[in-house]
Amino acid sequence: MKIEEHIKNLFIAPDKSNLNIIEETIALFVTQMLDYLSNANSSAPLPLFRKLPSEEFSIPAQGMDISAIQSKLNTLYQNSMNPANSRYLGHMDSIPTVYSILGEMIASAINNNMLSLEMSPYLTQLEHHLIQQFTQLFELSPETSGGIIVSGGSLANLQALVVARNQALNVKDTGLCFNAQIPVIFTSEASHASVVKSAMIMGIGINNVTKIKCNHKYQMDLEDLQDKIKFHLAKGHVPIAIVATAGTTVTGSIDSLPEIAEIAQKNQIWLHVDAIYGGALIFLPEHKQRLKGIEFADSISFNPQKWLYVAKTCSMLLFKNYPAMVDNFRISAPYMKEQTDFINLGEITIQGSRNAEVLKLWLSLLSIGTDGYRQLINHGYNLSHKFTRLVAKLAFIELITEPETNVICFRIKAEDTNQQEQLNIALQEYLLKHGVFVSVPRFNGQIWLRMVLLNPFTDENIIEELCRYLQTFYDECDT
Amino acid sequence: MKIEEHIKNLFIAPDKSNLNIIEETIALFVTQMLDYLSNANSSAPLPLFRKLPSEEFSIPAQGMDISAIQSKLNTLYQNSMNPANSRYLGHMDSIPTVYSILGEMIASAINNNMLSLEMSPYLTQLEHHLIQQFTQLFELSPETSGGIIVSGGSLANLQALVVARNQALNVKDTGLCFNAQIPVIFTSEASHASVVKSAMIMGIGINNVTKIKCNHKYQMDLEDLQDKIKFHLAKGHVPIAIVATAGTTVTGSIDSLPEIAEIAQKNQIWLHVDAIYGGALIFLPEHKQRLKGIEFADSISFNPQKWLYVAKTCSMLLFKNYPAMVDNFRISAPYMKEQTDFINLGEITIQGSRNAEVLKLWLSLLSIGTDGYRQLINHGYNLSHKFTRLVAKLAFIELITEPETNVICFRIKAEDTNQQEQLNIALQEYLLKHGVFVSVPRFNGQIWLRMVLLNPFTDENIIEELCRYLQTFYDECDT
Repeated sequence: MKIEEHIKNLFIAPDKSNLNIIEETIALFVTQMLDYLSNANSSAPLPLFRKLPSEEFSIPAQGMDISAIQSKLNTLYQNSMNPANSRYLGHMDSIPTVYSILGEMIASAINNNMLSLEMSPYLTQLEHHLIQQFTQLFELSPETSGGIIVSGGSLANLQALVVARNQALNVKDTGLCFNAQIPVIFTSEASHASVVKSAMIMGIGINNVTKIKCNHKYQMDLEDLQDKIKFHLAKGHVPIAIVATAGTTVTGSIDSLPEIAEIAQKNQIWLHVDAIYGGALIFLPEHKQRLKGIEFADSISFNPQKWLYVAKTCSMLLFKNYPAMVDNFRISAPYMKEQTDFINLGEITIQGSRNAEVLKLWLSLLSIGTDGYRQLINHGYNLSHKFTRLVAKLAFIELITEPETNVICFRIKAEDTNQQEQLNIALQEYLLKHGVFVSVPRFNGQIWLRMVLLNPFTDENIIEELCRYLQTFYDECDT
Repeated sequence: MKIEEHIKNLFIAPDKSNLNIIEETIALFVTQMLDYLSNANSSAPLPLFRKLPSEEFSIPAQGMDISAIQSKLNTLYQNSMNPANSRYLGHMDSIPTVYSILGEMIASAINNNMLSLEMSPYLTQLEHHLIQQFTQLFELSPETSGGIIVSGGSLANLQALVVARNQALNVKDTGLCFNAQIPVIFTSEASHASVVKSAMIMGIGINNVTKIKCNHKYQMDLEDLQDKIKFHLAKGHVPIAIVATAGTTVTGSIDSLPEIAEIAQKNQIWLHVDAIYGGALIFLPEHKQRLKGIEFADSISFNPQKWLYVAKTCSMLLFKNYPAMVDNFRISAPYMKEQTDFINLGEITIQGSRNAEVLKLWLSLLSIGTDGYRQLINHGYNLSHKFTRLVAKLAFIELITEPETNVICFRIKAEDTNQQEQLNIALQEYLLKHGVFVSVPRFNGQIWLRMVLLNPFTDENIIEELCRYLQTFYDECDT
């Protein structure tokens, strides 16, 4: 059995023999993609959900031709979330930079492997040097700091906590059994679900995540933190880490980092800052001081895949003491060529084989520059201010709290909780019917409408339009 | 501060206003990429390692123009691993399908999020239905089986073991502390490093992975497995899982799955089959029986990113009892819209936000079809047979074992171990100088040369040429 020619033409031949065919194929799919994306405002920001028959997704015996595949992709485009629409305001999933798309295309085409230096000679160096610059942007010590890139923020938080646990309890080799001291992780009620998930995965258990109350700005309550640390220490428990958040998922709040850092230091507890969302403020001189205190963190997670407009996934994990992280985490793989200058990244990451997500980040940074990022991030702040100014005039609307970043939660006020819930769900549907998508998270048991003002094509007119819709919805309800 | 026009033009405007600029940008980078890849045979399969100055990777304040970025990319191309070269035989990293490249491009462009159904209405359905078909290809029970896609095989193995642990010890909530029974994972000496890494991450500890001896074919020794299970049970330890391998990293060996399944069942131990490499044999009627017994597994990990030619990362994890997995793993996130028909995938995966790696797999399957995959996978077997036939005539060469898949380890025989090591390292360098890349893993303390015969453009001539190089190297050494 030989490989038929038409199957071979589904790969880029290394001898130029099928270049024309490949060029044509790629051009057709680029055209189709741009047809859809450059008209993103003509499709809904979120299409009506359509349950498709399972046959739609059947694996064929014989390969299909281009037009049949393009027709499948049309169904995909028509039924996908559409964050490129400038009225898509619902989640932290932004329109990606065009260099994200190119970076992902190139990374998959050359298919290098971040597992080892041999398998990604350039890209391992790139990841190393780029991460070093981010440690400096976060003002970590230039002598000892370092980090890695991982596929998503949950993985970053998990690895930070595994390293903290191994350091606190010295259980890399022995595991947690027979450890008679209960390990505890402290984090606020507003922190990300991945903290609890990490505790479950790493054998700490869901119950041993101690949730700290929030103040009215949805920041970790410092008194409650101190009380709970005291309580657990008195019981003989072992604190593994305090997880502070810079940019919570629902309200974009930033914990009081300098104070938390002091508490962590006083009690000698590992401080992890989940700056997955808010870390982008390193590029905003106007607001960078909101991250003050982050330089005392033992570890920081930050997602370029959110406010840096890099396509998913692209997340980084930085450590104040990189050599200690390597000691506490490294698992060597004997089948990899040993390295001296650059550690094989597969040995110090949860993932082993990994594609070069660093490339889409780097190309975005090269093309946008830190000045461009400053403009983009500022834009979200401007829109937030615009909205809060306008909404202040709508007496029937309440904000969950004054927004600290570009994430805003609001809703229509009502006396009755049930009525309020129905009313606000109806409002979200009303807005969606008018082409504006905001999300409806349940937070502390209550429904809110949530906007993340990320999209560079969302302008002040859209914010004004949104406020008009709020008014008309309210008027219609009233009558 | 406004966003300048040239920064906005680094995004696809949703109103068609910059379509020409975007088209031009993409075309330039596609041309550059194809210039390199369609000439992959003109560059070395692995370039000489070049340590680049850190300034090469500086983040600029002002965005750079296209030509400056393209010049950076030229340095990337010239210094990257080149698996598209048809004499690249060294690792399990193949030339990717062109639809992998397109799939990754489209997935990043639409930037949907596998976290929840709302954020990936089509792609969540696609992942669900595609995974169901794979459970059937592996002959798992159609009633209860199901699975997920994750970013790499290490994550797949980790989640399988976390679920097995939670089921065996019921520690999802409480964690492992105070658990007075030592948990044990059984796996062969030839299994992947991610098994040990998983044990470390999940709090089981490196020491509690019990390595089972291998037989001469590098399969798990069944007697040793039974002895060690008996030993640990007698000590009151709790077996968490047996991890069998279908396609080991170094020799491509497949463990005796029916016998191991019987042992697992008799002792009521979770059976995880790491079929990350060998799972591709489901598409090869000629050799599918080598996977016999896999249908008894409680969980199976399989990587389309290897022998299915899908660009990294793309890995799947299948469970015999999907509802039980959900019970044992799920962590809900209150900020996601609740779903009934399709579980939000972020709640049942280690990663939360995740890009649609399923798309590059699906487009590859649509274009190649199961018949095309049969041709591709067969090709590797044919080349393996060709090599073993030819090398049988070279008395100075030994094989580590008769290859069971398309992974072959060989070396020049020598009396003295030190001399043998030097000789074979010199042989690898000699081959690389002649444009052929094989890898040099250290396995059981010894150096071997390893080939993975994946590339569809590697033909019999290249295998013959390689054998001639072996002869000329040996002749030169002899004189």
